[in-house]
Amino acid sequence: MNFDIKRTGRAVLHVTDLDKSREFYDALGLIETESDDENIFYRAIEDHNHHCLWLKKKAEAAVEVISYRVNAEADLEKLELFFQSQGTEVKWMEKGSQKGIGRTIRIQDISGIPVEFYFEMDKVERMLQRFDIHVGAKVQRIDHFNCAVPNVQKAYDYYIKELGFACSEYTTSKGEDNIWAAWLHRKPGVHDTAFMNSIGPRLHHIGFWLKDPMSLIDGCDYLAAKGFSASIERGPGRHGLSNAFFLYLRDPDGHRIELYNGDYYTGDSDFDPIEWDLDDPQRQTFWGHEAPDSWFEEASTFLNVYTGEKVETKQPTLEKRKPTTVI
Amino acid sequence: MNFDIKRTGRAVLHVTDLDKSREFYDALGLIETESDDENIFYRAIEDHNHHCLWLKKKAEAAVEVISYRVNAEADLEKLELFFQSQGTEVKWMEKGSQKGIGRTIRIQDISGIPVEFYFEMDKVERMLQRFDIHVGAKVQRIDHFNCAVPNVQKAYDYYIKELGFACSEYTTSKGEDNIWAAWLHRKPGVHDTAFMNSIGPRLHHIGFWLKDPMSLIDGCDYLAAKGFSASIERGPGRHGLSNAFFLYLRDPDGHRIELYNGDYYTGDSDFDPIEWDLDDPQRQTFWGHEAPDSWFEEASTFLNVYTGEKVETKQPTLEKRKPTTVI
Amino acid sequence: MNFDIKRTGRAVLHVTDLDKSREFYDALGLIETESDDENIFYRAIEDHNHHCLWLKKKAEAAVEVISYRVNAEADLEKLELFFQSQGTEVKWMEKGSQKGIGRTIRIQDISGIPVEFYFEMDKVERMLQRFDIHVGAKVQRIDHFNCAVPNVQKAYDYYIKELGFACSEYTTSKGEDNIWAAWLHRKPGVHDTAFMNSIGPRLHHIGFWLKDPMSLIDGCDYLAAKGFSASIERGPGRHGLSNAFFLYLRDPDGHRIELYNGDYYTGDSDFDPIEWDLDDPQRQTFWGHEAPDSWFEEASTFLNVYTGEKVETKQPTLEKRKPTTVI
Amino acid sequence: MNFDIKRTGRAVLHVTDLDKSREFYDALGLIETESDDENIFYRAIEDHNHHCLWLKKKAEAAVEVISYRVNAEADLEKLELFFQSQGTEVKWMEKGSQKGIGRTIRIQDISGIPVEFYFEMDKVERMLQRFDIHVGAKVQRIDHFNCAVPNVQKAYDYYIKELGFACSEYTTSKGEDNIWAAWLHRKPGVHDTAFMNSIGPRLHHIGFWLKDPMSLIDGCDYLAAKGFSASIERGPGRHGLSNAFFLYLRDPDGHRIELYNGDYYTGDSDFDPIEWDLDDPQRQTFWGHEAPDSWFEEASTFLNVYTGEKVETKQPTLEKRKPTTVI
Repeated sequence: MNFDIKRTGRAVLHVTDLDKSREFYDALGLIETESDDENIFYRAIEDHNHHCLWLKKKAEAAVEVISYRVNAEADLEKLELFFQSQGTEVKWMEKGSQKGIGRTIRIQDISGIPVEFYFEMDKVERMLQRFDIHVGAKVQRIDHFNCAVPNVQKAYDYYIKELGFACSEYTTSKGEDNIWAAWLHRKPGVHDTAFMNSIGPRLHHIGFWLKDPMSLIDGCDYLAAKGFSASIERGPGRHGLSNAFFLYLRDPDGHRIELYNGDYYTGDSDFDPIEWDLDDPQRQTFWGHEAPDSWFEEASTFLNVYTGEKVETKQPTLEKRKPTTVI
Repeated sequence: MNFDIKRTGRAVLHVTDLDKSREFYDALGLIETESDDENIFYRAIEDHNHHCLWLKKKAEAAVEVISYRVNAEADLEKLELFFQSQGTEVKWMEKGSQKGIGRTIRIQDISGIPVEFYFEMDKVERMLQRFDIHVGAKVQRIDHFNCAVPNVQKAYDYYIKELGFACSEYTTSKGEDNIWAAWLHRKPGVHDTAFMNSIGPRLHHIGFWLKDPMSLIDGCDYLAAKGFSASIERGPGRHGLSNAFFLYLRDPDGHRIELYNGDYYTGDSDFDPIEWDLDDPQRQTFWGHEAPDSWFEEASTFLNVYTGEKVETKQPTLEKRKPTTVI
Repeated sequence: MNFDIKRTGRAVLHVTDLDKSREFYDALGLIETESDDENIFYRAIEDHNHHCLWLKKKAEAAVEVISYRVNAEADLEKLELFFQSQGTEVKWMEKGSQKGIGRTIRIQDISGIPVEFYFEMDKVERMLQRFDIHVGAKVQRIDHFNCAVPNVQKAYDYYIKELGFACSEYTTSKGEDNIWAAWLHRKPGVHDTAFMNSIGPRLHHIGFWLKDPMSLIDGCDYLAAKGFSASIERGPGRHGLSNAFFLYLRDPDGHRIELYNGDYYTGDSDFDPIEWDLDDPQRQTFWGHEAPDSWFEEASTFLNVYTGEKVETKQPTLEKRKPTTVI
Repeated sequence: MNFDIKRTGRAVLHVTDLDKSREFYDALGLIETESDDENIFYRAIEDHNHHCLWLKKKAEAAVEVISYRVNAEADLEKLELFFQSQGTEVKWMEKGSQKGIGRTIRIQDISGIPVEFYFEMDKVERMLQRFDIHVGAKVQRIDHFNCAVPNVQKAYDYYIKELGFACSEYTTSKGEDNIWAAWLHRKPGVHDTAFMNSIGPRLHHIGFWLKDPMSLIDGCDYLAAKGFSASIERGPGRHGLSNAFFLYLRDPDGHRIELYNGDYYTGDSDFDPIEWDLDDPQRQTFWGHEAPDSWFEEASTFLNVYTGEKVETKQPTLEKRKPTTVI
C-alpha cells in the first residue's frame, strides 16, 4: 500500500440526551472543546487537536462513523484510489461540512463498518499540564476501536494485507483453523482496532488510554460520586490479552467505553503476535470478576455512511461461545 | 467496664495443607516469623510483635479463635472477673503453651464465637522500612474480624455495653426495629469487629489494612502471576459503608481474607455512627461488581474453646435477604 | 492525669492576604466550610466537624493558637484545675466568641507555645465520599503540630508526664544525655505534636495526613498548575523517622505545611519508642533531596494567648546543628 | 533517507565492579538475561529481546556505544552507504562477535558520539505478566539517550535532516538564534535521543520508561532499603519539558540513569514541536527541588568506536549557563 494510516482518531456517536451524555463524559475527564444544542466535541488531556469524540444529538443512539487519522493530506486521494480499485464506494465529506476537521473520506469497510479517514484537524490548546482541570479518570487519549464482526478472519486479512495494520495478539481455538479475535495496530501499541467473532458488525467499545492505574480507580470513585456507579459494567480487572488494567462503562445510551492502562511497545518489525487459546482462563481475565452477559451480548449499532440507515448484522461464522467472542 | 481492650490482635486458623497456605499468604506480603511442620506464624510489615496470624496444620479447616489485645497484663484478670460475673466460663492458656505469646484467656462469646484476650507477645524486628522484602499486597497490619451471627442486636448490645466497643456504622431496614449489621471498634478506625445477620456464628472474613490502593492492585497482579487468580472472590470495588477500597480472597481452605484501604478516624467521643439503609444500593457497593453468592453464603466454622468441637450454627433472627446479610 | 486529650484538633493562623491564602489552601484540597471578609474556616475531606484550620486576616502573619481536642466537655474543667495547680494562667474563650466551636481554654505552655483545648465543635457534612469535589492533594485530616523549642527535654517531660502523651520516636546524639527531637502522640499514630531543638518557641509546621502517596504527587501537579511550584520547599521524599512520605510547603505567608502519608499504629502500651541517632543519614531523609536551609531556619511566630503579643524566642539549649534540629 | 531507524535499542556500558553494578541495576527491576564474570545482559519487563543494557567489566568506566534498532536487516547496508557518502567510517561488528545480537554497524556521529545500529537480536521470554518477579522501579523499557554536545544546532540538523528524527520539544534563548537543547524521536514518544549544550560529547543519561508514577516511588523505597539512597541525585519531580515525572540516579560508576513516566504521543506529522524559553523556571522543573551542580556538570565519557580511546570533549558553542545546559 502507498498510503499511511497513522492511528485511531475519533468517533462520531449519536446520543439521545446531550445533557446526560455530557455529565457522563465530563466525569471521565474528557475536555469539551466546543458545543451547541446539537453537538459536543471532546478532546482528551494530551490532545492538541480539536476532538477525538463527537456526540451528536439524535432520536436514536448509533455509531455514525469511526475514524482513523492518516499521515498526510495526500493519503486521502491514495486511499480513494485504493478503495475504488476494490469496488468500494467512497464518500467525500468536504472541509466545512464537519466542525473542527478538514475534508474526510468515508467508506463501509469489508465487514460493513462505517470507517472514515482524515488528516487535517484544527489545533487547540493542549491541557496535559493543566492538572488543575484534570478530573475523574483523566482520560489521556483515544486509543482504539473494538468491533464485533461475523467473520474475523476476513476482517483480519483485509486490515493486515490491504490496509497495512499489524497484529499484536490474537485468539484461536485448539484444533480449529480460524481466528476468533484479533488485536491490530498502526501506532506501536497493542491496538488501533480489534475484531471479535460475534453478531456484527457492531461497535463493542471505544478504548481510551489512561496515564496510570490510579486514574482508573479515581475514575470509579468520581463516577460513583456523580451517580454513575451503575454505568460500570465490568472491572476493574486485568486482561491476560494486552495486559490492560481495564474498566468497561456504558454511557447513558449504552455505548461502551473502555478505560485502560498497561499495554506495551509493538513497533519492532519482528514482533511475534501473541497467540492465546480461546479456553485459557487468563486470556480474558488475568484476574477479576467474570464479564456479565451484557458485555458479551450488547454492542452499538453502526450506520451506513451512504444512506444513514442502520447497518444490518449477521450471525457469526464461528459458533458463538461465551468465553470466546470478545474481549 | 474497668478493663481496656485495645484492638484486633491475631487469628488462629486451622488449615489442611501448610505448603499451599504458605504460597497464598506469602503472596499477600505477610512475613513469616517462624514455622515448623505444623505451624506458620505470620506478621505484617509494620508489626513489632511475633504474629498476627497463626496457621495450624489440621485435618479440617476451622477457626480456632480470634484474639483481641488488651492494654495491660492486669486486664486479663479484670476480664476474667467480668466473664465470671456473667456466668461465662474462662479458659486460661498459660504462657509457654502457645508460641510467641504470653498467657491468654479464651471464652465463647454471647454469639458463640471463640474469643481470646492477651497482652504479652514477643517482640520482633519491624520490617516497615525493609521495602526490599515487601511483596504482593504488602499487607501492613491486621485490622478486623467480620462475623456472621444469628442475632446482630444481641451481639451489638453485648460488645457496646459490656465490652466497651463503639459503633462506627450500621445497617437497618426501614420500618424495622433491629440492626442488620454493625461495625464496631476499639482502636479509632472503622472496625475491630463487625457482625451481620446470617447463619452463625461463623467467621466471614479477617480484614487486613493496606498502605494504599495501589498495593491492592499490585496484590491482584502478584496473586494472578502466582496462579491465585481464582482466589479473588470479589473486588476490587469500594464499599459505601466504611469507604473501604476492598478485595476479598479465599485462602486454599476457603477462609476469607479482606484486603482494604480507605477508612477514617473514629476516635472522637461525639462521633455519630453512620446509618445505612439495607436497600441503599451504594451501601454494600459504592461501585464495583455485585458480590457473588458464595460471598453471602459461605463462611468459616468456629471451634468451641473448651471442647475443640465445631460450634453449632443457628438460622438468623431476621429474615435473610441477599443484599442484607453482610458486607 | 484525670483529663483525656484526644488528638490534634485545629490551628488558628493569622494571614495577610485572604485571597492568596484561599488559592493556596484550596489547592491542597481543603474544603471551605464558611468564610467572610476576615476569616476562612477549612475542614479536610473526612472531617465531620466545622474546621481544622482557621485563617484570620491580620496585618502580620502569626500563629494565634494550636488546639487539641479533648474527650469530653468536663475535661476542660479538669484541665483548668490542673493548669491552676501548676501556676499556669488559664484563659477561657466562651462559646459564641469563636465561630463553629464551643468554649475553649487557652494557655501558654511550658515552652511558651499558645495551646488551646476544646471539646465541642459544630457538626457539618462529611465529604469523604464526595470524590467529585476532591482536588489537589485531597487532604484527609489534620494530623500534628511540629514546634521548635529551646529545650526539648523540658517539653518532652511535660507532655509525657503531665499531659499524658506517649513517645513514638526520638533523636539523641551519641554520648550526650539530652533529647534533640521527639515525636509524641495521643491518638495512636506517630504524632500529635513534635518538638525539636531550635530557636523557639516557633511553629515549624502543621502536618496533614493524605490517604495515599499518589495524592501527594497529584498535589504537586495541581499546585504547580496553579502557579504554586515555588511553594514546594522540600520533597517529595521519605523520612526514616516516622516513615512519612512527605512534602513541605510554604503558604503565601510562609507558614509551613507538611503533607504526608505512611506512618503506623502506635497504640500498644508496650510500644518501644524508636531511637534515632542524630548523625544517622537516613533518620531525616530515608531518601530524597537534602532539606534547604530555610527548612532548618525559618518557622512561624507564636502569639501570647493573654496579650496577643509575639512570643519571644530563645536560643536552643543544645548546640544547634544542621542535621540536628528538626524534622 | 531510505533507511528506517526505529527506536532507542540498547547501551553498552563499561563498569568497574560487576557485583556492585548488579546490586544497583537489579534494584531498578531490570531482569538479568545472562551473565558471566565479565558481562551482565539486562532486559526490561516488557522486552522480548535479549537485552537493552550490557554491562562490561573494565578497568575504567565509560560508554562504549549507544545503539538504535532499525526496521530491517537491509537498513544496515543502506546506513553504510549513507555514512560512506558522508565520509563517515563504518565499523561492522559481525554476528557472533557480541552476545545475543546479530551484526551491527558502529560509527562516530557528527558530535563524536559512538553510535551503533542493529536489527537482529535474540528473542527471549517476555516477563510483562510475571508480576511476581517485578521489583523496585519495575523498569518497563529503555526509552532514550541524552547527550551533552558542544554544538546542539549541528547535532539537531544532522539527526533531523540526515537521519530522519523528528523534534518534540526544544529550548531556545530569547533574542538568540541557536538551539540550546532538543528532544528528538523516531518512535512516537517525546524522545529517542536528546542533545543539550555543554562540554561534550558525553552521555548525560540513559532514560528508562516506567509503567506508572508509583513505580518511581517504589523504586526510591527499594533503592533506599538496599542502601542506595545516596544514588538518588535528583527528584522525584516533574519536568515542564516532556511532562516527565522523573528521578535521576547515579550507578556505582557514576553513569546517570533517568527513570520517568508521563510523556505523550508525538506520531502525528503535523505535531508542532514545543518551544521553551531557557529562562522559563518551569521548563526544567515544573515542580521539585533544584538540580544539584553535579547534574549539570558531570556526565559519562564516550569511547571511540574505531580506537577504543576516550573521545575528547570540547567546550560548548553557546555560553554555558546553569539553567541552560541540559534537562
